[in-house]
Amino acid sequence: MSRSDALQDHYPEDVAHCYGCGPLNEHGLQLETRWDGDETISRFTPEPYHTAMPGWVYGGLIASLLDCHGTGTASAAALRREGKEIGDEPSPRYVTARLEVDYLRPTPLGPELEIRGSVEEMTERKVIVNETLSAAGEMCARGRVVAVRMPERFGEPEPGR
Amino acid sequence: MSRSDALQDHYPEDVAHCYGCGPLNEHGLQLETRWDGDETISRFTPEPYHTAMPGWVYGGLIASLLDCHGTGTASAAALRREGKEIGDEPSPRYVTARLEVDYLRPTPLGPELEIRGSVEEMTERKVIVNETLSAAGEMCARGRVVAVRMPERFGEPEPGR
Repeated sequence: MSRSDALQDHYPEDVAHCYGCGPLNEHGLQLETRWDGDETISRFTPEPYHTAMPGWVYGGLIASLLDCHGTGTASAAALRREGKEIGDEPSPRYVTARLEVDYLRPTPLGPELEIRGSVEEMTERKVIVNETLSAAGEMCARGRVVAVRMPERFGEPEPGR
Repeated sequence: MSRSDALQDHYPEDVAHCYGCGPLNEHGLQLETRWDGDETISRFTPEPYHTAMPGWVYGGLIASLLDCHGTGTASAAALRREGKEIGDEPSPRYVTARLEVDYLRPTPLGPELEIRGSVEEMTERKVIVNETLSAAGEMCARGRVVAVRMPERFGEPEPGR
């Protein structure tokens, strides 16, 4: 196994196609989450067409980055809780149960965006992640993700439905 | 002015480039919000690469659709409050202050998605919109958008900063 320090590089191949962060999705954003001390970090430079108003970043992209960095942070935290580093084993896959985004000010389109995550609360099944998104050193949005461990039979109807 | 019944077709040209719903963004999703009685509705069929896990829709796309349909609903509601129909005058532009998404179940990738909005609360400056997103008749996500009227000098630093 490669020793990349990006969490998503270690998703099992059958769950590595996420548009936001799957290394196997060639059309996608391919976000990469890493540890930076006790926080996680990812960086992304929007395309010129990721506009809200001309000159400013589209809010849906911001939500997407916070979503994927949130589930990535949950996965990294689950590994670390077991004393493991990213890459020691396949990254566990989390999915988003709830996403909250506060848009604090318009995000300028051009500079690289920095997304940081930290764990608010963690149980066996659930991780709550707080996030910030900054451009050129100024915080533009805050996010909160409730991530849950992906069930083994993701998407299959529950019994009786 | 064309009499299209899609709210976004009447955004002024200088604010019609949104990646999610701007008719002038050729790379974007071009979501269209219309009235359906007292609710608003939009429909969108994801691309095959808009995946979360294979077979399921990416959560960031869902957040994006709810975001744009939310600000579109706010704009439509502002018009209607003044007794106007979509297309009577340029659609007023709202921006998102807060977005909440509850992912209730995985959203199947394939069927057209239907997004519905209704106004929870409305003041001169702010509209709160509740939304649902359904696939093949089943509700998969719920959204809530706090939309605020776009300031005239969007993105310019406030005095004193």
